[in-house]
Amino acid sequence: MLLSRMFFHTSKEIPSDAEILSHKLMIRAGMIQKLASGIYNHLPLFQKSIKKVIKIVQEEMDGTGAQEVSLPFVLPASLWKESKRWLYYGKELLRFQDRHERDFCLGPTHEEVITDLVRREVNSYRQLPLILYQIQTKFRDEIRPRYGVMRAREFIMKDAYSFDIDEASASESYHNMYDTYFRIFNRCGLEFRAVEADTGSIGGSFSHEFMVIADTGEDLIISCDKCNYSANVEKAEIKLKEINNLFSERKEKKLMPTPDQKKAEEVAKFLNVCIKDIVKTLILETENGPIAAILRGDHELNIAKLKNVIGCNFLELAEEETIKKVTDAPQGFAGPVNLKIKIYADHEIKGMINFVTGGNIKDTHFINVNFERDFKIFKFADIRCAKTGDPCPRCSGILTESRGIEVGHIFKLGTKYSEALKANYLDKKGKEHLIVMGCYGIGIERIIASAIEQYHDEHGIIFPASVAPFHFIILPVNMENNEVKKTAEKIYDECKHKNLEVILDDRKSQAGVKFKDADLIGIPFRITVGIKSLRQGKVEIKERKTGKTEQVELSDILDRLLRIKNSFK
Amino acid sequence: MLLSRMFFHTSKEIPSDAEILSHKLMIRAGMIQKLASGIYNHLPLFQKSIKKVIKIVQEEMDGTGAQEVSLPFVLPASLWKESKRWLYYGKELLRFQDRHERDFCLGPTHEEVITDLVRREVNSYRQLPLILYQIQTKFRDEIRPRYGVMRAREFIMKDAYSFDIDEASASESYHNMYDTYFRIFNRCGLEFRAVEADTGSIGGSFSHEFMVIADTGEDLIISCDKCNYSANVEKAEIKLKEINNLFSERKEKKLMPTPDQKKAEEVAKFLNVCIKDIVKTLILETENGPIAAILRGDHELNIAKLKNVIGCNFLELAEEETIKKVTDAPQGFAGPVNLKIKIYADHEIKGMINFVTGGNIKDTHFINVNFERDFKIFKFADIRCAKTGDPCPRCSGILTESRGIEVGHIFKLGTKYSEALKANYLDKKGKEHLIVMGCYGIGIERIIASAIEQYHDEHGIIFPASVAPFHFIILPVNMENNEVKKTAEKIYDECKHKNLEVILDDRKSQAGVKFKDADLIGIPFRITVGIKSLRQGKVEIKERKTGKTEQVELSDILDRLLRIKNSFK
Repeated sequence: MLLSRMFFHTSKEIPSDAEILSHKLMIRAGMIQKLASGIYNHLPLFQKSIKKVIKIVQEEMDGTGAQEVSLPFVLPASLWKESKRWLYYGKELLRFQDRHERDFCLGPTHEEVITDLVRREVNSYRQLPLILYQIQTKFRDEIRPRYGVMRAREFIMKDAYSFDIDEASASESYHNMYDTYFRIFNRCGLEFRAVEADTGSIGGSFSHEFMVIADTGEDLIISCDKCNYSANVEKAEIKLKEINNLFSERKEKKLMPTPDQKKAEEVAKFLNVCIKDIVKTLILETENGPIAAILRGDHELNIAKLKNVIGCNFLELAEEETIKKVTDAPQGFAGPVNLKIKIYADHEIKGMINFVTGGNIKDTHFINVNFERDFKIFKFADIRCAKTGDPCPRCSGILTESRGIEVGHIFKLGTKYSEALKANYLDKKGKEHLIVMGCYGIGIERIIASAIEQYHDEHGIIFPASVAPFHFIILPVNMENNEVKKTAEKIYDECKHKNLEVILDDRKSQAGVKFKDADLIGIPFRITVGIKSLRQGKVEIKERKTGKTEQVELSDILDRLLRIKNSFK
Repeated sequence: MLLSRMFFHTSKEIPSDAEILSHKLMIRAGMIQKLASGIYNHLPLFQKSIKKVIKIVQEEMDGTGAQEVSLPFVLPASLWKESKRWLYYGKELLRFQDRHERDFCLGPTHEEVITDLVRREVNSYRQLPLILYQIQTKFRDEIRPRYGVMRAREFIMKDAYSFDIDEASASESYHNMYDTYFRIFNRCGLEFRAVEADTGSIGGSFSHEFMVIADTGEDLIISCDKCNYSANVEKAEIKLKEINNLFSERKEKKLMPTPDQKKAEEVAKFLNVCIKDIVKTLILETENGPIAAILRGDHELNIAKLKNVIGCNFLELAEEETIKKVTDAPQGFAGPVNLKIKIYADHEIKGMINFVTGGNIKDTHFINVNFERDFKIFKFADIRCAKTGDPCPRCSGILTESRGIEVGHIFKLGTKYSEALKANYLDKKGKEHLIVMGCYGIGIERIIASAIEQYHDEHGIIFPASVAPFHFIILPVNMENNEVKKTAEKIYDECKHKNLEVILDDRKSQAGVKFKDADLIGIPFRITVGIKSLRQGKVEIKERKTGKTEQVELSDILDRLLRIKNSFK
């Protein structure tokens, strides 16, 4: 490709909504252009990388025996009603009506559609196991799309679904995909880690996220410093502590004025107690009405864990109105004493006595509250987020936090969808069973954005060769010099002839601009054709990643480039 | 691929909505599955063909220097309001609001988005000419989706857009695409014809449709029997006839009772006149109020032509209510006499005298009506559909009708969108000009469906090799015979090793079922491994298209298959 003919221009302007580096660099490198909030045009440079990622994904998926299908983007509501997710998916599921006023939605994921497809085609154990996948556009109407293509509303996803006769076979499919994901992300040149994850709105029993390690990552990963336990913060378990205060004295409960003191930190300071002596009370909405969750003042509620404990489909922090109705007090003064709704308590509360809680009266808190004596707990459970310093649930190690970008997510779904949609098969004896399912997603654009987060320097992107739009950029320092121009064009033609992925910067721009652009767009190897070197019959090859340069005889250049290309995997 | 592992089953059941052959065969061959009206799942067999078509399209587009991009499917209303198509596109444009109540639509085509993309990136003549394309999902909310993937609501389209500095350069781009389309459809193995076409809601000045010739085609093509003039029925021009009745006697107009006689045929019969003596009057709605169109009784109104004549954006037959308001009579009795709205008349009317028209009173018609004397015509124009027997507009030949399936459509857009969206460039002297555009579409699924319409027999599909899901199917007659099984598997392994596109029907089904399925799914070459031939050290190769068979020595089989493969182009 000739750069002068490419639909491409680099830019120094960074839009104000570009918060993270990959977003900034992709805009500056002319890879994407924003069309609407969370909706992007892919320009040729990006499209080339996208196609490389898709090819890697297809090769690895096909290699495991998975079969490619293509499911629609516009989905009838009926299937989503059958699975009940029409009710529970929330506003991320963009719903609308067609011209005949029939309900539809844009597919944010395709469990319902694929289960329907399979229940209509599969009836015998002979047709299983089966893994189907597609690479296709999804839409999730995120409340706050951000980070460019990293958390867009419209995006490309590889989603795969496995169908097996039983749990054991489903586990094999799961591990098959787990291994395939390792191969895919390795081929994409990423440093990543598989972490245990919550199953969220997809549902199912077990799940791993594939996280690209990056300080700028949106996700918090909790890992043990001793064993290989690793989980995302929503999932990370917390080891139960021993309780040793069973016989300590319970003091008399007392209502204290705490004017305008709402947050745990404020109350602790005002009452001159440690924040670890505060029990905070959160009121939440479920589809069956409000419930309360109590935690130690310095801990953070983990909504995903609490949702699993309650077994509800919908869980969100309650609005002010509900809080007033439930507690008789404005927000900030809720407490478990005299509360009429179910109270879920974090395990940590078990070891607490004589603690401080909201008074359920404006501007008051109780001190010396004790559970059992002053209020009843409906259920103790692990409902808080793990954090650095917590004990590892698997060994005697200590957990630490790091950050990552989720590029893949695999789920053991079990029979959640086959049950809802009645996807059965007949075994050898003609007996009916539910199909056991798994599902497996990869965010295609995210792979590229996270590669940029991982590999860049102050000059721009440093693409791994496998996902770079081109492998080589030929940079004639001065197109007006005939010898330079001719040599650059000759190398370019030879490269094209050998099917090397090469771009020639034939623009008449200043050398400085060309060097800057080549660095910015992150092409792995630059071949500089300059007058000085040419006089010695040489050109320079520079590796973007290491900055290492070598002077190569003109007669050897093609061989050298072919060898470099063959060194890529 | 092993057929026993493929997600695939053939079926004898044909859904009641499958009207045309390709739809029936694609359902029976297990290629597609309906999800909702006009919305289909693509199964693995279809997906393989789709990917082959996409590869051909990409190679040919890239070969012309076009650059691939990817534009979103969910589009903000703002751009559609800028081009005014938000108002005029009608209900095929599926509109909805996102969670923030902002207007969006699903892209039925992408002129607005690409023009916006280009106006933001291009400012100099140096960046032109430019051809961008994408292969992407579209949605058109058809009132009556039908014919399976042939007229689906959701479908894959290759849409390309050209950007040039002037009309001459734009013509070059247009011809470049015209030639590219010939190469694409040739490589897909189709028999097709490029016909002149109306520009419809896309707009612009000039257009060709690429029509696959098939009796079952939805589109009517008008072609000259003498010259190479060919156009779709919406566009086909009609040569002006000479008028030779200027001095004939004009009789006295008279109102006649015609109880319940509404259609031209009925009135002609009732009044005992020739249908060619009837002038029918149609009331139509435009965005600027109703108008009337008059035509000879046996002619058909061409809405596309009339729309161009009026120069309006919206044109549809009026509802009963409007007709009553305009004519003071119920539907069926409209006539031009005393009509207060503009009357557009077909050229053919010029030669008519003493004709019959509606009376604008229930159950009456006038006889001996004459224009000028009895009513005024606002404009004469070519507003009817051409039909077999009409004279060719280019030569002395006669037009004939044939049927086709539109697989591609190219448009000279001119500056319609660049003007609406202000897409300009600066020339060498720094003067601003509008970019001159073209657009170019190909329906990806349609290529396959129309190939099936064109190539099939009573046993099923006969795929051209270039778009067949596989080139070869190995059919062991009896998998229980060890020699047959081993030989088939050996040939299969050797084929795989040579990267031949091969499928092994390793199912334990009866031979009859396997032969039927192989014919149905239309794989170009079948390799039959049977006991009888094997005893002579041979297997049979059968060409699906010709039915020709040959017995090939086992030792020669791979060579023979490689030679067959190399004969494909």
